[in-house]
Parts: sequence; C-alpha cells; structure tokens
Amino acid sequence: MTIRRLAVIGVGLIGGSLARALRAAGEVGEIVGCGRGRANLERARELGVIDRYTHDVAEAVKDADMVFLAVPLGAMRETFAAIKGHLAEDAVITDGGSAKFSVIDDCRAVFGEVLPSLVAGHPIAGTENSGVEASFAELYRNRRIILTPTEETSDAALQRVRAMWEACGGEITLMSVEHHDEVLAATSHLPHMLAFGLVDTLAQMKENDEIFRYAAGGFRDFTRIASSNPVMWRDVCVANRRALGKMMSHYLNEMQALADTIERGDADQLMEIFTRAKEARDRYIDGVLDSSE
Amino acid sequence: MTIRRLAVIGVGLIGGSLARALRAAGEVGEIVGCGRGRANLERARELGVIDRYTHDVAEAVKDADMVFLAVPLGAMRETFAAIKGHLAEDAVITDGGSAKFSVIDDCRAVFGEVLPSLVAGHPIAGTENSGVEASFAELYRNRRIILTPTEETSDAALQRVRAMWEACGGEITLMSVEHHDEVLAATSHLPHMLAFGLVDTLAQMKENDEIFRYAAGGFRDFTRIASSNPVMWRDVCVANRRALGKMMSHYLNEMQALADTIERGDADQLMEIFTRAKEARDRYIDGVLDSSE
Repeated sequence: MTIRRLAVIGVGLIGGSLARALRAAGEVGEIVGCGRGRANLERARELGVIDRYTHDVAEAVKDADMVFLAVPLGAMRETFAAIKGHLAEDAVITDGGSAKFSVIDDCRAVFGEVLPSLVAGHPIAGTENSGVEASFAELYRNRRIILTPTEETSDAALQRVRAMWEACGGEITLMSVEHHDEVLAATSHLPHMLAFGLVDTLAQMKENDEIFRYAAGGFRDFTRIASSNPVMWRDVCVANRRALGKMMSHYLNEMQALADTIERGDADQLMEIFTRAKEARDRYIDGVLDSSE
Repeated sequence: MTIRRLAVIGVGLIGGSLARALRAAGEVGEIVGCGRGRANLERARELGVIDRYTHDVAEAVKDADMVFLAVPLGAMRETFAAIKGHLAEDAVITDGGSAKFSVIDDCRAVFGEVLPSLVAGHPIAGTENSGVEASFAELYRNRRIILTPTEETSDAALQRVRAMWEACGGEITLMSVEHHDEVLAATSHLPHMLAFGLVDTLAQMKENDEIFRYAAGGFRDFTRIASSNPVMWRDVCVANRRALGKMMSHYLNEMQALADTIERGDADQLMEIFTRAKEARDRYIDGVLDSSE
C-alpha cells in the first residue's frame, strides 16, 4: 500500500479517476473527498470512489500522506491557504492543473516558499464529460503525466508522486515549469482560444442562425472544444497568460500573413502553406498518436 | 428516367456518389465518366459507378442532357473551355464547387455570358475520404444542396437540377451566389484557414517534435481538417477570396481583442467571451445538427 490516506480536493473526472485507479491498483488505504457540492460528494461515496467526505479542506487533509488538488486553477491559492497549518508531517501535495507556474506561485504566496513537499503535475488526459459520474479507473492508462519539480522539490516527494501515477498506468515525463507552460499553451490553450474566437466571431454575425445552420460536420468537431467550461478556461488564460500571450502573438502573425496571401490571391504561396501544414500534421500527429492509441 | 445521359467530369467522392445515387434511384440512362487518371476511371467502371469513360471532356459531354462538373475550382475555367461547342441542345450544366461566384465568372469568361443552362450548385456533404472508391449512393441523403441560380438561369434548367438532387435524397435550398459564398466562407473556409494556420504555426516552432508529441486528443480532431487536400484549398481561397478575406478580417479582430484581454489578465471579460461562445455553440450547433443527424 503506497498511500495511507489520500485526500482528493475536487472530486470530478480528474480527482475521481485518480481515486478509482489507486483503489483498483490496491495502492491506497482510505480516500477522503472534499468539495463544495454535497450531491456530488454523496454520489462519489455511493460509487465507492471515496470512503468519506467533508466540505472542510483542513479536515480533509488531516493525517493524509498524499493530497491531490483537482480544483480550478483560480481556486488553487485559496486551497493552499485552507491547507496551511493542517498538513501531516509526511504529506506530499500534487495537483492536476493545466498550467504550472501559477500553482508554484500560489504556493509561494501562501507559504512564503515553494514547499519541498509540493510536486506540481499535469496528467494529459480527459474526456468530454465532467463530474465524478464520468470518472473511471483507466483514464490515465498509457497517458502522459507531466511532473514539474522545482529546485525546492524534495526527491522523496517526487518519487512518491511518480509511484502514484505509475500505479495508475501513467507515463511520467519530467519538465521544467516554464517549458510545460509553453508546450501546453501551444498544444491545448491556443487551440481552445481559436475555437472560442471562431464561434464568437460567427455568433456576432447578423445572420448567425443561418450561418450555424450550414455549418457542416467538420465544423462541429472543430468547435466542440468551444463548448468547454468557461470558468476553467478563464482560469487557464489568467494562470498561463505569459506563455499563452506569446503563442497568440505567433499565431496572429501567421494568420495575418495568410490573410494577406489570400487578399493577394497568391496561389503559389497558399499551396506552400497548405502543403507544409498538411505534411506537418500528417507526419507528427498521425505518427505520434497512432502509435500510442 | 429523368436523365438520358449523365456526364460526370471528375469521378471522385462527389461525382461518383452522384452517379451511384441516380443509378440506385433509377433516374439515369447512361453515365459517362471523364477525368485524367486511367486507373481511377477504370475502377469506376468496374464498380459500376459509370458505364464508360473518356479522357476527353468534349467527347464526354456529347449528347449528355446533364453535365456535372466535379473538378477543383481551379480547373473550372478550362473545363468550360473544353465543353464549349460540344454541348447537346438540351444539356443542363451543374457543379459541386464550394465557391459559386468564381464558377459563374469562369462561365462568363469562356462563353461571354452566364449560360441559361448553368445551375451552379453546392452539395454540403463529404467524408474524410476521397476518390471513387469512397463514393456511395447515400452521401447526399438528407444533406443540404445549395443551388445558386442567377437572373440568367432558365427555370427549366433549375427544375431539372432540383429534381436530380431530390432523387438523391438531398434537401434543396436556393441562395444568391454572393450569400452562398459568405455563408461558406464563415462555416467552412474560415475554419479550414484556422486549422492550417495553427498547424503551420506549431510546425515552425523550434521544438515542434515535442510540441506535437504533447498534443492531446482534442487537438487531433481540431487539426484533422488541416490534413485536407492543399490543391483544393488553394483553389477555394483564390476562388472565394472576397468573402473569405472579409471573414478573416473579422476573425483577426476578434482574436486580437482576445489576445489583448489575456494580456491584461481581464478575468471578467474572458468569462464573458467564453460563456457567449459556449452558449452560441451549444444552442446552434447541437440544436441544428442533432435534429438533422
């Protein structure tokens, strides 16, 4: 049994799936859930995802040797504040947030230091659904789990978090905080901005009913991510605004150049751009994902 | 039998599926295929999609009372030129191009007028696959078929093209040429530009291998359309550059405003944008497509 008591702060798809995976692997003793909504926590207990729950973060982390923060990035700081002074001596803290600098920064703001027991992390996994009902033990199987230890992080804490994710079937990658935030800005945060921006552009057109009526199947896939949780994405943008701002600027330059090329009707240049994009997409995406899926 | 002899210029997914659907409906006598590649035409004949084929457009349209142009937009003008002087007296011409102004314009350039027998059209249907092997008789069932008759178009020609698509199970909508091009710029051409631009932006980053390695599932869907045929999209951009240019400009303004909002870390404004986009996407897309799929 690797973990004596796991505290899961935020029992949704991400937190719930971690709990289920560790339970299934026989790697955890007791699991305590914490959150605001009573119905969700009650359901989590019925489903056997958690053993008991509380709405009080301080109580949840009491005697826990592993604390998993699965709250929105905008709620990290207050969660650290609620934890402060209540952690067990051997407690390790990790999280599932999709930006890492802000989590480290929130820890520093609350504790006056980056805790040696904090191992900021990001499982690259998810589904279209949310909430504990959607959670399942296999969510992290063969998925990349990025951990971003800092100079302050203790080796022992890192090893315990690594072992936890390996027990869930995840593939661990270590990365610097800054590099993680850049990679995620490029591959996840920027694409979401494009989708939100596209849908919002069309929604503001006069005949938007008609526009949407003629949107074909590909468009639907494309904009599915614009249907993501606005609170989560607001928090991501604020938390990762440095790296995301840089990517937005690259992208806007590229799109402005493409717009100019279209304006000029420069067929050769268009052919070059589209061919390069198709080749890159086919080579990397299919190569990388087909082999792992 | 509505059609005595159908000439299909370009026997791929679009042209092949039309031929199959009309054959299945018993609405066509003979089907003549025309194209450049011998292997594809030979395969089309083996599959029974066409009865015979030729590489000569003039020969293909001889005695045909219905001519369907399923060539890339960039090949329309030369196709009109090859047809000129060889059409049967009762021939009606229609096409499947995804921009309509340029087709009308190509006709005018070749014939000196917009032929009364030309009914420009656009079936809103397709799959990820291309070529005659991918064609099937049900492709157009319950799909929107936009026809864009002009002042010059004869009523008789319009009725015959309408009847042809109805025999394939399509749902006909009439639209002005200009309006079609705007609607398609918004719902199809612009989204493709975003995807090409995104993939090209990432491909140009230094660590692009790694970037693509961390691209998650949603990103894959999102960029799938960046893998579309570069020749087709070059032609679409050139053919529809007026309407697409306008949409690109709206979109760039929206994205610049979003970038500024992220830069400022304006959480309230971000929440407003993302909520508006999510609501629009959920309301229109799901409402419209769920009821028709």
